[in-house]
Amino acid sequence: MAETMALPPHRHAAEPMPGGTAFEWPVRIYWEDTDAGGIVFYANYLKFFERARTEWLRSLGIEQHSLREQTGGMFIVSQTDVRYLRPARLDDALTVTAWLQHKGRASLIIRQQTFLRSEPASALLCEASIRIGWVDALSLKPARIPDSLLQRLENKP
Amino acid sequence: MAETMALPPHRHAAEPMPGGTAFEWPVRIYWEDTDAGGIVFYANYLKFFERARTEWLRSLGIEQHSLREQTGGMFIVSQTDVRYLRPARLDDALTVTAWLQHKGRASLIIRQQTFLRSEPASALLCEASIRIGWVDALSLKPARIPDSLLQRLENKP
Amino acid sequence: MAETMALPPHRHAAEPMPGGTAFEWPVRIYWEDTDAGGIVFYANYLKFFERARTEWLRSLGIEQHSLREQTGGMFIVSQTDVRYLRPARLDDALTVTAWLQHKGRASLIIRQQTFLRSEPASALLCEASIRIGWVDALSLKPARIPDSLLQRLENKP
Amino acid sequence: MAETMALPPHRHAAEPMPGGTAFEWPVRIYWEDTDAGGIVFYANYLKFFERARTEWLRSLGIEQHSLREQTGGMFIVSQTDVRYLRPARLDDALTVTAWLQHKGRASLIIRQQTFLRSEPASALLCEASIRIGWVDALSLKPARIPDSLLQRLENKP
Repeated sequence: MAETMALPPHRHAAEPMPGGTAFEWPVRIYWEDTDAGGIVFYANYLKFFERARTEWLRSLGIEQHSLREQTGGMFIVSQTDVRYLRPARLDDALTVTAWLQHKGRASLIIRQQTFLRSEPASALLCEASIRIGWVDALSLKPARIPDSLLQRLENKP
Repeated sequence: MAETMALPPHRHAAEPMPGGTAFEWPVRIYWEDTDAGGIVFYANYLKFFERARTEWLRSLGIEQHSLREQTGGMFIVSQTDVRYLRPARLDDALTVTAWLQHKGRASLIIRQQTFLRSEPASALLCEASIRIGWVDALSLKPARIPDSLLQRLENKP
Repeated sequence: MAETMALPPHRHAAEPMPGGTAFEWPVRIYWEDTDAGGIVFYANYLKFFERARTEWLRSLGIEQHSLREQTGGMFIVSQTDVRYLRPARLDDALTVTAWLQHKGRASLIIRQQTFLRSEPASALLCEASIRIGWVDALSLKPARIPDSLLQRLENKP
Repeated sequence: MAETMALPPHRHAAEPMPGGTAFEWPVRIYWEDTDAGGIVFYANYLKFFERARTEWLRSLGIEQHSLREQTGGMFIVSQTDVRYLRPARLDDALTVTAWLQHKGRASLIIRQQTFLRSEPASALLCEASIRIGWVDALSLKPARIPDSLLQRLENKP
């Protein structure tokens, strides 16, 4: 259990993020993530980005399962633009970032990157813009993001 | 689109199934199904078995989404015993079977096999016993399978 | 097995595709495709698009596994831009399209859409531009698409 | 990033494991893991078990990707017997264990459990016996586990 947790602070060539640094989350590559090309199946980066967004929200005190029970709403992904630059392989240790690029009344745009942790510098593998909207969980109709949620997002890393 | 559909009736060494023949469903192997070993990731056979069970139920007139809305209940998997005998690879064409081995008041046991379609005879890749129970969809508590459902299952292939 | 195959020709409001109609492939929604929001997990549309691209290539006589053994090269996805418009649910029957939008010496851009099959008209759920490049399978370095492959792609649907 | 890592040592009713305690690995539930039943899709427990086995091996100094390059062999799963007792939901924090139950010349049997971390005691969600065999990575034929590997496994937790 120790290893993921023991990962030291790490330098990589992340984009400068106006208004703060990006949230970072470690991801390890397992068999489940790879395909017969010997590399990570590209669709799985969307899962890694989702994990980092979830943990970024959790770091702001936002738990999605509780949120849904309290507000009747949930986030839903409406657009994903992803560029895949270099492949990752089994056992690789990645860092996935999340940074709030735009905050609207009904949707957010999150800028995300995935880096391979390596020495002397990390390599950028993949980058994305993810648009997420707020919807009523039953009707799935778009709705305004609750104020309490927006206030927590102000406290953005 | 034609090819999967054009697959001719095919002989393979399926287990004799007392009381009827097994339901058969074709599955094609895509990149998403494989791992860096160059073969199908073993956990994905559970997905293939699920697809075949779903289509077997559908062939008996049972649609799970509608069923849940009508009865408030749903099937849930409670046990999966799987033996992996031979690997499958990208682009392989498989046949997945489903056969109702045991029918209780609250659970079913489905016997399933996966074959690689090849000439002159298909090869058995994987076989499983899957136990599924009926639960209330909200509380997830076990419940008796509705009579109307049991009657449809009598008409088992 | 019959039902997917028996789906009749179906009208939907597909984009006009200069130079031909789009290839179409049916996809059924199973439990594996959904998430706790009750809808299809957005990352899974990349799998559906991949299945349709694979079957489109197969319809042109291009089998990716054989191709790799013969040429030592393979396709790799380098960019995916996806817009999610409406959700799909368990048991839904979808049609996924693929249409060759741009053909370069080292990469292709495929335009893809996913429709919910429903009466009287299908609903557009999701649309994407997918860029795929040709690489050496061992080094993963970009390479020119083999001429024989380009010629087969001329015969595009 | 802090939360997963800050999880304190935790008591749960794990099976007594003759000859040592089980290796433990934390797993968090994300959207990708759930299905439309609102719970974790059962096939995904095989992924969680795999992650824990991989990290157990890594804790013994065994990296599977390097191992394959050095020995030309790899582990392959040949049998998975799983019982699903209680469901997990979005945002749940789980502990997954791995314990070497049997060590043969060509295969291992790993006993694994998944617990929901909750107070005052953890709840057992799922348990499994996983048989893994050693094969030549190209031919996929069974082979004897390399001695150096067996020696590292002696040092089992």
